[in-house]
Amino acid sequence: MAPRPGEDDLIARYFAPLAGLAGLGLRDDAALIRPPAGRELVVTTDALVAGVHFFADDPPGAIARKALRVNLSDLAAKGAAPLGFVLDLALPADWTADWLEAFAAGLGDDASAYSCPLLGGDTVRTPGPLTLAITAFGAVAPGRFVARSGARAGDAMYVTGSIGDAALGLRLRRGERLVIAEAHRSFLIDRYLLPQPRLALAPALARFANASMDVSDGLVGDLTKLLRVSGVSARIELARTPLSPAAAAAIAVEPALFEAAVTGGDDYELIVI
Amino acid sequence: MAPRPGEDDLIARYFAPLAGLAGLGLRDDAALIRPPAGRELVVTTDALVAGVHFFADDPPGAIARKALRVNLSDLAAKGAAPLGFVLDLALPADWTADWLEAFAAGLGDDASAYSCPLLGGDTVRTPGPLTLAITAFGAVAPGRFVARSGARAGDAMYVTGSIGDAALGLRLRRGERLVIAEAHRSFLIDRYLLPQPRLALAPALARFANASMDVSDGLVGDLTKLLRVSGVSARIELARTPLSPAAAAAIAVEPALFEAAVTGGDDYELIVI
Repeated sequence: MAPRPGEDDLIARYFAPLAGLAGLGLRDDAALIRPPAGRELVVTTDALVAGVHFFADDPPGAIARKALRVNLSDLAAKGAAPLGFVLDLALPADWTADWLEAFAAGLGDDASAYSCPLLGGDTVRTPGPLTLAITAFGAVAPGRFVARSGARAGDAMYVTGSIGDAALGLRLRRGERLVIAEAHRSFLIDRYLLPQPRLALAPALARFANASMDVSDGLVGDLTKLLRVSGVSARIELARTPLSPAAAAAIAVEPALFEAAVTGGDDYELIVI
Repeated sequence: MAPRPGEDDLIARYFAPLAGLAGLGLRDDAALIRPPAGRELVVTTDALVAGVHFFADDPPGAIARKALRVNLSDLAAKGAAPLGFVLDLALPADWTADWLEAFAAGLGDDASAYSCPLLGGDTVRTPGPLTLAITAFGAVAPGRFVARSGARAGDAMYVTGSIGDAALGLRLRRGERLVIAEAHRSFLIDRYLLPQPRLALAPALARFANASMDVSDGLVGDLTKLLRVSGVSARIELARTPLSPAAAAAIAVEPALFEAAVTGGDDYELIVI
């Protein structure tokens, strides 16, 4: 087991390599953001707790990537392009240098893949479970922020991908048995572990969408929230919900899983209206 | 005991009243920040854990205010004026509506007093201790961000107020006995509980300072960090460290406390160079 560095060394060793120019090498108390000329700044934040939002024994890189990706998913829903993020990390007493190295490597891979550098953060200790919060920043053209509240009577509704995979993947991750092919099984667990933020669609949303939000708490519940703040109601033909081949296979064997698919969380697909 | 609301009601009831226009009534996944024309955006974040950074039985309003103020202190050190903040709050299972109401009231008082509205956040549950992270945003004129790394040979060094009060206040809060007047005792405990962010000095810092940081981990340690990233060394006449009458009284009775005063944390005064 590698020796554990102190906080400053920890930042220098694991996190400074992830920092963009605005992060000042993570050697300051604050970062400096210059939004691109003529752009507005979008801010979003999500907190994750071990044992609540992920399993403490999930691969450390996957925990880091999920924490960043759930925030990138919010940016995508608002039509924004990523600019960077800050990380608050509360480490339990038993953290190891190996764990943190793998965590930082996963975070760095995604920061690079999504052009979203680490700008700063805070690392503290906790007597409780590993807890992390990421606050991410994005840029959107003026007036193009896609609100939850913009849905209007007569609008059509879309989702950006298959629904329910993560809810079924979570059941598998918990050890529940589903009689499906091994490839379907891996697909569903991966969909739970690693959300795919739909950033490629953000420019189209900024141009054409009236309202959007990402599905983190389940399609039915999240759509209800969007409709409420928009002041409209909707008729959804649930039978037309897009399902992956893996989810369709699981539901074919056990039809009651359909309800779990449309009410379960962690899809991180976008509702677009 | 008042009944406990669900997450959406909790946000609507306690936190939405604290939201500025950019927070969109906290009814969206993200907030929209428009930095004032021609200003750059400063971002800082700090996490606090019950039992580590504050006592779980501290007044809830004081916990909230300290969490915001330690971030405002960082903005002040960078020469920035507050624009707003986001809050990540992990609540343990035993939270009560009364506790949260007092927490939100304290947070709202400071958000208002410092013109720093709540823009958004995330509220989650935790099996561990109460944990919160605040990310605060400020505005600074282009090129006026006051870095840690700008100290040069020949510069003079200042602090913005008395040093060591909070370190002594923490000892009192822990139940250690110091033979001092009751008024001194209250003063020191209050200095520990409620930092005073030096935002009034931020414009002067932005104009005149070469380097700055706030003292959160102790004068000696934090100054060492600043000097290291600036690539200079300093000779400090510790005997000239500004002490409050309360700290001076405590040190007069027990001279060994002077070391605690200059190495203890939570001063939230600024080192200005």
